[in-house]
Amino acid sequence: MSDVSLGLVGVGKIVRDQHLPALAATPGYRLLASADPHASLPEVPAYADMASMLDAHPELDAVAICTPTHLRHAQARLALQRGKQVLLEKPPGATLSEVEDLIDVASEQGVTLFAAWHSRFAPGVARAREWLAERRIERVEIVWKEDVRVWHPGQAWIWQPGGMGVFDPGINALSIATAILPQAFFLRQARLLVPSNCQTPIAAELSFADPDGATIEADFDFRQSGPPTWDIHVETDAGRLSLTQGGCRLSLDGQLSLEAEEREYAGLYARFAELVASGRREVDVAPLRHVADAFLYGQRDVTDAFIE
Amino acid sequence: MSDVSLGLVGVGKIVRDQHLPALAATPGYRLLASADPHASLPEVPAYADMASMLDAHPELDAVAICTPTHLRHAQARLALQRGKQVLLEKPPGATLSEVEDLIDVASEQGVTLFAAWHSRFAPGVARAREWLAERRIERVEIVWKEDVRVWHPGQAWIWQPGGMGVFDPGINALSIATAILPQAFFLRQARLLVPSNCQTPIAAELSFADPDGATIEADFDFRQSGPPTWDIHVETDAGRLSLTQGGCRLSLDGQLSLEAEEREYAGLYARFAELVASGRREVDVAPLRHVADAFLYGQRDVTDAFIE
Repeated sequence: MSDVSLGLVGVGKIVRDQHLPALAATPGYRLLASADPHASLPEVPAYADMASMLDAHPELDAVAICTPTHLRHAQARLALQRGKQVLLEKPPGATLSEVEDLIDVASEQGVTLFAAWHSRFAPGVARAREWLAERRIERVEIVWKEDVRVWHPGQAWIWQPGGMGVFDPGINALSIATAILPQAFFLRQARLLVPSNCQTPIAAELSFADPDGATIEADFDFRQSGPPTWDIHVETDAGRLSLTQGGCRLSLDGQLSLEAEEREYAGLYARFAELVASGRREVDVAPLRHVADAFLYGQRDVTDAFIE
Repeated sequence: MSDVSLGLVGVGKIVRDQHLPALAATPGYRLLASADPHASLPEVPAYADMASMLDAHPELDAVAICTPTHLRHAQARLALQRGKQVLLEKPPGATLSEVEDLIDVASEQGVTLFAAWHSRFAPGVARAREWLAERRIERVEIVWKEDVRVWHPGQAWIWQPGGMGVFDPGINALSIATAILPQAFFLRQARLLVPSNCQTPIAAELSFADPDGATIEADFDFRQSGPPTWDIHVETDAGRLSLTQGGCRLSLDGQLSLEAEEREYAGLYARFAELVASGRREVDVAPLRHVADAFLYGQRDVTDAFIE
């Protein structure tokens, strides 16, 4: 198959840190242009907005949308309507209604829409899913803690409405849990700790249950000092799984099964190329739905103001 | 077709006020039993829980689930797994993940699941939908205001997590708007006013847009004194529609088109009978999704404590 001609929409930190190295390492792509009112890339034709980029490059097959969340719906909709294949950075929209609409439009247009949950491409996720598929889940413990000052310096948007606070990393944990656990699970109780000067939580405790009564407890916290904890532990009827270091390390029954360097975005772009080649869509709303459920159903308690 | 043998799950105020009169007025039903740990109905066999009712009455075709929201998912899931047709009071779940699961289970079982948005059966809704289907929407104004002390006396749950506050009536407005407007719409901004001693909003201002740029403004308020305001006004390229009094009165271009008594639950049970007879499902998640979107994406401001 021929290379995918790609345009990048939004040229921020995630594009420089992750998308560009992944594109350089993944066969099958030609980066033709970028669109961003404030930023550009060396040797890549740059446009102030996506519509201008699409007008100037009718040969573009696909766009990767990496703009702030509240801009994504209108951009993705326009790109889909113009017949482009679309990769959406996580989360796939500011609201669930937007994502449902994009699914409808992509389906009508018969083009690929890929809601890219990058953490699902961590090295241990696929093996964890296989191992759990054959077992009965008894108890799951998700611990996702990092120092917001280290991992999100100066990102004031994270504390604004729609910024999701600690769910910005927490949704990565939920994207892994929904991928590896063999059954859906449902929120039973949630407590969101919101700094007195912020709109979004700095920490969250979530209790879910699956249809067979397994408990899934999640502990998200932005107030970690020192190294981050990005761990998922699963007790089953036939042993224990630990997927730690954000999915880079997998232990089964106390034995190290796999440990590898993180190459999430390379996997993500390889997957997008497969989807485009086969004309399929992959949009799993479940991680964002769990976050919306926590905001809808959670108890909010006020905690100390956050001063960066 | 033969009558639907029905069991009521949960025998609270909504059942006495609405379900029983509607069942009495709608052909095609036989009320066989009820399940509620604290309440029963004259001359109807009563059970403390749904499982006991289903065990005692294998001839039951269907159940109507009218329990507090957080109990509905487990009950509906069990009823569907036992092959029963299920009517769910609004909202169809405490969270969106629960509703998606019920859709999957109903589909696997091949039985009817009906998410019953009662306000969609208000007299003017069907005609409003027809009239708007042929027009281009320019501007929508939704005003849904009532005195919480009059309409929800003593309902402390409404202020607890999951109680949804002013969205408990507001979701009725959203269920009508999503039924009559020809296109989906998306939240652009929301402000939720939350009493300092409550978890859920007492008022909300929502701004939506549709894909063609029409604006939809919604104003929900529990602090109304005097009669309620339950109105939707739509400006189109070919005239103005006003659906007022909760959908009982429809004006088109300033002319009264329709005015009728509210018989929502009779319409709702007639629809359920049709769905059961034809083996279909009707679960529109959109109204609950809009509420979750507002909680996820809205700005929360604290207002005066609520003292009933």
